[in-house]
Amino acid sequence: MKNIIVGQSGGPTAVINSSVVGVYKKARELGVQKVYGMVYGIEGFLKENIIDLGKYLDNKENFELLKRTPSAFLGSCRYKLPEIKGHEDIYERIFELLEKYEIDALFYIGGNDSMDTIKMLSDYAKEHNKPQKFMGVPKTIDNDLGVTDHCPGYGSACKYIATSLKEIIRDNSSFGVEKPTICIVEIMGRHAGWLTAAASLCKDSDCEGVDAIYLPELPFDLDKFISKVKDLSKKKSSVVIAVSEGIQTKDGKFVCELNDDNKRVDAFGHKQLSGCASTLADIIARETGLKTRAIEFSTLQRAATHIASLTDIEEAQMVGEKAVEAASNGNSGMMVIIERKNTKKYESTTSIYDIHNIANVEKKIPLEWIDEKNNYMKEEYLEYAKPLIQGELLPIFKDGVVCHLVRK
Amino acid sequence: MKNIIVGQSGGPTAVINSSVVGVYKKARELGVQKVYGMVYGIEGFLKENIIDLGKYLDNKENFELLKRTPSAFLGSCRYKLPEIKGHEDIYERIFELLEKYEIDALFYIGGNDSMDTIKMLSDYAKEHNKPQKFMGVPKTIDNDLGVTDHCPGYGSACKYIATSLKEIIRDNSSFGVEKPTICIVEIMGRHAGWLTAAASLCKDSDCEGVDAIYLPELPFDLDKFISKVKDLSKKKSSVVIAVSEGIQTKDGKFVCELNDDNKRVDAFGHKQLSGCASTLADIIARETGLKTRAIEFSTLQRAATHIASLTDIEEAQMVGEKAVEAASNGNSGMMVIIERKNTKKYESTTSIYDIHNIANVEKKIPLEWIDEKNNYMKEEYLEYAKPLIQGELLPIFKDGVVCHLVRK
Repeated sequence: MKNIIVGQSGGPTAVINSSVVGVYKKARELGVQKVYGMVYGIEGFLKENIIDLGKYLDNKENFELLKRTPSAFLGSCRYKLPEIKGHEDIYERIFELLEKYEIDALFYIGGNDSMDTIKMLSDYAKEHNKPQKFMGVPKTIDNDLGVTDHCPGYGSACKYIATSLKEIIRDNSSFGVEKPTICIVEIMGRHAGWLTAAASLCKDSDCEGVDAIYLPELPFDLDKFISKVKDLSKKKSSVVIAVSEGIQTKDGKFVCELNDDNKRVDAFGHKQLSGCASTLADIIARETGLKTRAIEFSTLQRAATHIASLTDIEEAQMVGEKAVEAASNGNSGMMVIIERKNTKKYESTTSIYDIHNIANVEKKIPLEWIDEKNNYMKEEYLEYAKPLIQGELLPIFKDGVVCHLVRK
Repeated sequence: MKNIIVGQSGGPTAVINSSVVGVYKKARELGVQKVYGMVYGIEGFLKENIIDLGKYLDNKENFELLKRTPSAFLGSCRYKLPEIKGHEDIYERIFELLEKYEIDALFYIGGNDSMDTIKMLSDYAKEHNKPQKFMGVPKTIDNDLGVTDHCPGYGSACKYIATSLKEIIRDNSSFGVEKPTICIVEIMGRHAGWLTAAASLCKDSDCEGVDAIYLPELPFDLDKFISKVKDLSKKKSSVVIAVSEGIQTKDGKFVCELNDDNKRVDAFGHKQLSGCASTLADIIARETGLKTRAIEFSTLQRAATHIASLTDIEEAQMVGEKAVEAASNGNSGMMVIIERKNTKKYESTTSIYDIHNIANVEKKIPLEWIDEKNNYMKEEYLEYAKPLIQGELLPIFKDGVVCHLVRK
């Protein structure tokens, strides 16, 4: 491969830049001449908005900073390529640019919607006998990509959620003699409860853990919820409950729609959900007279690289490296997946998989991992998730604040 | 002093337990026999809810864990002692318990409302010729206590705010080519803008910083705010604005009251404010059609010990030590204050001050530190605040999650 290009797409994560590091490192090892970065994903590429990554990453200090920088260093987009038929001009433009810069392989770091881009481009290349290779690099805090054991970005979000919840539980437990405080914490996840399930990870000998977890995999029953909170408040001075932003009643209504009509949509046409915790906190306050508090982790759960998981950072780099290796071996239209080895101590390896069987598929939490009666996660989930949050890569501080690498 | 007792009161902070560490350490050095802790502050003490701190802190590992544990290890309360006249029974009960446990000095770690407790108890002791000493130990993320240069708890909250905002700014800057996203971040602080001012600390060569800061020290003008956001959105793809929960219009209306009638009060009779950021985000979305996001740091800004400031931890310990030393020298009815030395490199020292001139007084940000025209903090504030966020005390991790010390 002479030159390659890498792009980032979709919602950012705490470790999405470690995959850029992986792509860059392997490319250098394989003697690739130029590693380009598309600025703002495929949308930016279409406008020829690209940079030479060597400008930043041939510097060792920057290399270390990039691993500690959240959000897409290259900039991201939520642009979905249209059907090839009827939009040939867009595809022709992309291949024209690839040829202009003598780019032999394109790497796209993203989630479900982004993998669709790799699918379309590799399909077009095949149809038109183009030699360029197209590889998907998985990334999503949502952990909802199919086939792969888990997705880079998920472990760090889990570590943030577990740590922050542990701190919130301590805070909420301060006032024992007053009437109980009900704290409802909203966690991201439209259809899959992977992130919210991570609330179970804060329970240990020094933490009672959250009192209940509500995932979108099961219908949400408001009456049962109210009665659960009432029961808990009789026994405990502090009640902390984790809810997914995406929980819905059995007739398909989002909880945040029970109080208002928040119906904004993002650029992919997904509903923008927010306010589920505050809706429930309002309802509980009204129904029980108890003191309530709603907390949303919001974008911090995907951006808190200062408390990222080292395992996650290393795996994010590993999938980037694997993608380059696979393309250099002639593969295209594939996504790198992570496989868990059958070892006593957690170990993982990478492989590649046909992207046609991955793009646009959402992986949910197996129902048998959910303790529906107690609104909690079963041991199976804990065994799955715990290895993913292990280890830390200490931030680099300057003047008391974490440092990042940014494009100039 | 034979035995002493220490209590924690009011809203918790990330370093309130380091003051317990300081009290305990100095007491041991001075040969105090028993160091008791009141569980849930003076309210718990009245119910004889006390523990022997030696049970936990004679263990070196616990000592280190306690410095890394957020929120009141002993439990807190929001109970204000009533006037002595007409409530002599409450005061008699407290002194009866002090005598029962042969307690010679009482230390109360808290903010404004808690210092009132020390004032009342030392006044009662003086009136009734009681020998016990009463000392206040400052603590509040709000930084609004008078006389002291700053308050333990503030520096760590600032460090959390600066770090998190830096991560939010990176996240919000991901999508350059789409229309701008306006992110409004709500920070605690009812009447004083100290915490919100810390939003200025994330600006550096690797971060553009927040675009505007709105403090409660100045009246909030909604029309000017909307026009400022419109201007910014024409120039930038990412706009991040920090607002204090306590900002009010010039006719004294809280911003969060512009949309709804959230008028809950806490146990001290303070209004419970929330939703200022989401109110503004709603208004901006409606008025401009721009994409908006509201983020509240909520209790995380006072509980995130995992990213606490080492300077703050050390000073929190120092004020605890000083309080014990001062009581052992015969002082009572005083609060420990922090003084900034007139040195080139930041250094601080402690002193004590008559609590009658501190309790119930709120210190605001000097207006001359605020750049009203640009809605930003002037250099004077940065010089004041930067030293307070320096240094880190790394968390102790177990299984990927931070460890705490909790009462059994």
